[in-house]
Amino acid sequence: MEHQIHRVRVEPEGVELQVDHLTSLTEVLAEAGILLSVPCGGNGTCGKCKVIIQGEYQPLTSLERGLLSSTEQDQGVRLGCQMQVVGDTIITVPESSRTTEMRVVLGGTNRSIRYDPPLAKRYAQLPSQTLEHAISEVANIREALDLRADLQADLMTARQLARILETSERQVTLVLHDNRLLTVEPGDTAQHVYGLALDIGTTTVVGALMNIATGQDVAVASAINEQSQYGHDVISRILYTIEHQSGLDDLQSAVMQSVQRVIDSVTEKANIQPSHIYEATVAGNTTMLHLFAGIDPRTLGTLPYVPVISDALDIRASELGLGIHPRGNVHLLPNIAGFVGADTVAAILAASFDEDDGRVRLLADIGTNCEIVLRKGDQLLACSTPAGPAFEGARITHGMYALPGAIEAVVLNHDCEVKVIGRCEPEGICGSGLVDIGAELLRVGLIDMMGHMLSPEEIDGNIPDRIRERLVEDDTGGAFVLAHNAADQEITLTQRDMRELQLAKGAIRTGIDLLLQNAGVALAEVDELCLAGGFGSYIDKSNAIRLGLIPELAEERISYIGNAAVVGSKLVLAARQMRQRSTEIARIITHLQVAHTPEFQMAFAEAMLFENAVV
Amino acid sequence: MEHQIHRVRVEPEGVELQVDHLTSLTEVLAEAGILLSVPCGGNGTCGKCKVIIQGEYQPLTSLERGLLSSTEQDQGVRLGCQMQVVGDTIITVPESSRTTEMRVVLGGTNRSIRYDPPLAKRYAQLPSQTLEHAISEVANIREALDLRADLQADLMTARQLARILETSERQVTLVLHDNRLLTVEPGDTAQHVYGLALDIGTTTVVGALMNIATGQDVAVASAINEQSQYGHDVISRILYTIEHQSGLDDLQSAVMQSVQRVIDSVTEKANIQPSHIYEATVAGNTTMLHLFAGIDPRTLGTLPYVPVISDALDIRASELGLGIHPRGNVHLLPNIAGFVGADTVAAILAASFDEDDGRVRLLADIGTNCEIVLRKGDQLLACSTPAGPAFEGARITHGMYALPGAIEAVVLNHDCEVKVIGRCEPEGICGSGLVDIGAELLRVGLIDMMGHMLSPEEIDGNIPDRIRERLVEDDTGGAFVLAHNAADQEITLTQRDMRELQLAKGAIRTGIDLLLQNAGVALAEVDELCLAGGFGSYIDKSNAIRLGLIPELAEERISYIGNAAVVGSKLVLAARQMRQRSTEIARIITHLQVAHTPEFQMAFAEAMLFENAVV
Repeated sequence: MEHQIHRVRVEPEGVELQVDHLTSLTEVLAEAGILLSVPCGGNGTCGKCKVIIQGEYQPLTSLERGLLSSTEQDQGVRLGCQMQVVGDTIITVPESSRTTEMRVVLGGTNRSIRYDPPLAKRYAQLPSQTLEHAISEVANIREALDLRADLQADLMTARQLARILETSERQVTLVLHDNRLLTVEPGDTAQHVYGLALDIGTTTVVGALMNIATGQDVAVASAINEQSQYGHDVISRILYTIEHQSGLDDLQSAVMQSVQRVIDSVTEKANIQPSHIYEATVAGNTTMLHLFAGIDPRTLGTLPYVPVISDALDIRASELGLGIHPRGNVHLLPNIAGFVGADTVAAILAASFDEDDGRVRLLADIGTNCEIVLRKGDQLLACSTPAGPAFEGARITHGMYALPGAIEAVVLNHDCEVKVIGRCEPEGICGSGLVDIGAELLRVGLIDMMGHMLSPEEIDGNIPDRIRERLVEDDTGGAFVLAHNAADQEITLTQRDMRELQLAKGAIRTGIDLLLQNAGVALAEVDELCLAGGFGSYIDKSNAIRLGLIPELAEERISYIGNAAVVGSKLVLAARQMRQRSTEIARIITHLQVAHTPEFQMAFAEAMLFENAVV
Repeated sequence: MEHQIHRVRVEPEGVELQVDHLTSLTEVLAEAGILLSVPCGGNGTCGKCKVIIQGEYQPLTSLERGLLSSTEQDQGVRLGCQMQVVGDTIITVPESSRTTEMRVVLGGTNRSIRYDPPLAKRYAQLPSQTLEHAISEVANIREALDLRADLQADLMTARQLARILETSERQVTLVLHDNRLLTVEPGDTAQHVYGLALDIGTTTVVGALMNIATGQDVAVASAINEQSQYGHDVISRILYTIEHQSGLDDLQSAVMQSVQRVIDSVTEKANIQPSHIYEATVAGNTTMLHLFAGIDPRTLGTLPYVPVISDALDIRASELGLGIHPRGNVHLLPNIAGFVGADTVAAILAASFDEDDGRVRLLADIGTNCEIVLRKGDQLLACSTPAGPAFEGARITHGMYALPGAIEAVVLNHDCEVKVIGRCEPEGICGSGLVDIGAELLRVGLIDMMGHMLSPEEIDGNIPDRIRERLVEDDTGGAFVLAHNAADQEITLTQRDMRELQLAKGAIRTGIDLLLQNAGVALAEVDELCLAGGFGSYIDKSNAIRLGLIPELAEERISYIGNAAVVGSKLVLAARQMRQRSTEIARIITHLQVAHTPEFQMAFAEAMLFENAVV
């Protein structure tokens, strides 16, 4: 079939659009400035997005037949989220099918916001200038778009504007960011407008691509942070920048490479041009954001670990060499302190910790660094502890990120049973698998209170042979064989891995305890503990408690919110209010310096122990 | 004598400063944030800047002995503007000797403003960070300077901040522009802070250097606009950008060269580093500002002559390649319309046309393009007419800009008497000389109503021989010899020059007449006509009236305000309020399109005639 264009009129607005064959109705309406109400996420299950169609249309889907009455079906009522345009049509969208609310449902969090991104694309046939009403071309655009605020043209845009207006015969698409005119494109490109929500972790970079016209998720991708070659933790990377002439450049290039991989991946998945991404919002820890922006991070490397800059930053993509539209806006979320970064601000947004809902709530965002936040009434407190990269798979002999092939759950029964992401041959262990194996070894009595792995001779006679046989010698003081990979090589948890796990859980637990103690909040008062982090499938609550990673709370009080930093980054991409809120959070939160106090060292030493050891 | 440093304490503030031997007290106080009241311009004649000195000081000057009573002299009272520091001293500055008002007295205008430049430099020994109060380095600077507003660090500044703080041991000078932290310099450089007020004319670029610490003028310089090689008027230059691939680049480079010459000249005169200039304010006509910023000006070249952008623009110096501090701010004043530019906005500020003082006032800014402004009550109107470059010396056979060697005044008596700028041998004729010779030739009857130069045979017998003998043949239809240059070559006014003068005076006069007519204001109502322009010494009022350049007004109603665009540019450099006011002017003024109406052509044809011709 040839390339077909259909005419669509949207009522009661009377807006006329020309769209490609099979364009989704959601996109068409977005171009007309209408956001369909899709609480189900556009899956055709809630029936909230009813529209009335006149003209050509596809047959009803089975979902529609289930949700629409026969009278409705006769009247041409359809579910907007299910439709594609197949011919010239008139579409009437009742008020009840519209929304300005966006429900973000990603990785367990569920926050309703007013969808109001600062980024927008508008097509216009600009009126010609006349002697009677001769105004500047920028003012003419402002009038044509009926904008109330002043419109500030980017210098590069102003430089080229006259030529683009001439060659396009004044048919242009305007890319706006708040009151900035980012760029002007010839013709109608209004449907192609994307934003990228990034979280730059010490170990991993994650990016979520959003269609700004529809507010829908389009693709997600992650990549290893290439900076890892210069050191596993932030301190070693900061030292690298101090000790090497080109150190800062090296580290900035490395993280840009990783981000570029994420961009390549999401744009390929979504089949879009990178230049149609006009904004990236960036969460991440303070050091990562400094390195991403090329800011000398030396003050973050020594006591008292201060950032150079904490405020949110807006930088032109070309200034950073970020591979989106060169005039795109790169928005770095604000940081709170040297070790409580923009990722925590984002997680606070994702978990709605910026609002007091009457409950006492704890948030632990577990990454290479663990940030802990407490909300009680007006109080909002945060601290951080150095958890190390164990839960992200680093510094663990067979550790890996939560990708297909990772052992994500372990049970020791008659034998060792493992669950592998992607149901393929196992390749390594991710964070949730690590928690499970640690807790299981403790439960069956293969590890003592000090974290020492027993030798086959030392263990209880009741332990099944198949388990016992998995204990092997190695040069770190013993190891436990979880599985074999495709090449029949052992995947083990070693004594040294166990030490890493101890350090990690000790640090996290100490942070939680000290934060509660400093705020004068008893554990019994805590209504909810939200666990955030990119450690694969959700960690088993009872295993995490057995390990001592988290305090003993009733399981129903513990919830998972996944990679909250990416969700927060998305919220900031989607709503001006969230952007403003992020700045307020960074301003009002109380940061407790706990990690460098003698108090911490005492508590940490104690929290390293396994209180629930049976031997 | 060795390089000496003295300690100065300023009371009642108690500020302590270390300053070089012979530093002027004005500078010392500026560094302490105190502006001395010097209505006389610091010449030691008004006696308003009394201070009390304890410690070492120079003997009283004769000016001081004349202005200070013997009691005052005994009490250690001195005139602050006259003093230099010669030893450790304590200086008490009474409230009555301080000001925040700045009186701008330049080229005839006289406007009192509150001196409040957005640019400032502050030295600080930044406090070290502590665990108890660990904040970002940018926040630390904000606290140390006791700033109320947020402080936004330039990305490049943020990138280098940590290193500079370390190497300078936290002794730094902060360069602020409103709430932006432009840059941070190691050590104390607070005395070195300059701003440059530019006016970019079609023919000439003028720049005035201001010491921002003291608010004083330091140096002025001008240069020919190198764009002239691509065309004399704005239309031919716009065409050049359309017709040549690299046209826009060529023209931008050309004007940058001219501005660079101005910068070289003022920095040499003032003996300062160009990198100590942190802001340039830029007035100029609309096309010049587009070309200066590299904005494609094609829409200014055809009806209805609209600018791409009219709003004020702030651009980083490095983005333009302007040879001041690379992170310096370049502020382009707003434009009103295609042919009423930022230079008119600046002239309106300089002549206080933004305020209604109850009078009906006219402003004519005479350049290659002539802009005319009318203020009557709430009414503020402007129009422009194409005067051509005659008054700036261009397209006149022996025309030249008002520099040494230019004939600036002419009288025809028994012979032709000329006055030369710099009292040297004449080289050519500048704008005021041109008005004089035109009017004098009319008065004595050597030119008729149509502008035709009579031949020796046609003229009246009463004309002295020495005058008659100056009429010579040439291929344009006759010429008048004004003088001879150092090489004994004739300096003439030719018939063709006379035509240029006719075109210029016709255009200006038509503009004035049509603006009055459109506003419904009779000539008799006009209380003041302000003449602005860089045409050398002030043009002779009666000669300008005889020529028909300006309407017949009583001479006391005509005033000169010199290069008002540069003065306005300086006002914007010196006061935030003026910057805001300039935006308001551009917004509220009514622009009348007169030059492209049939009405204009009719009036123009008439205004070309010399009504006051005696033959």
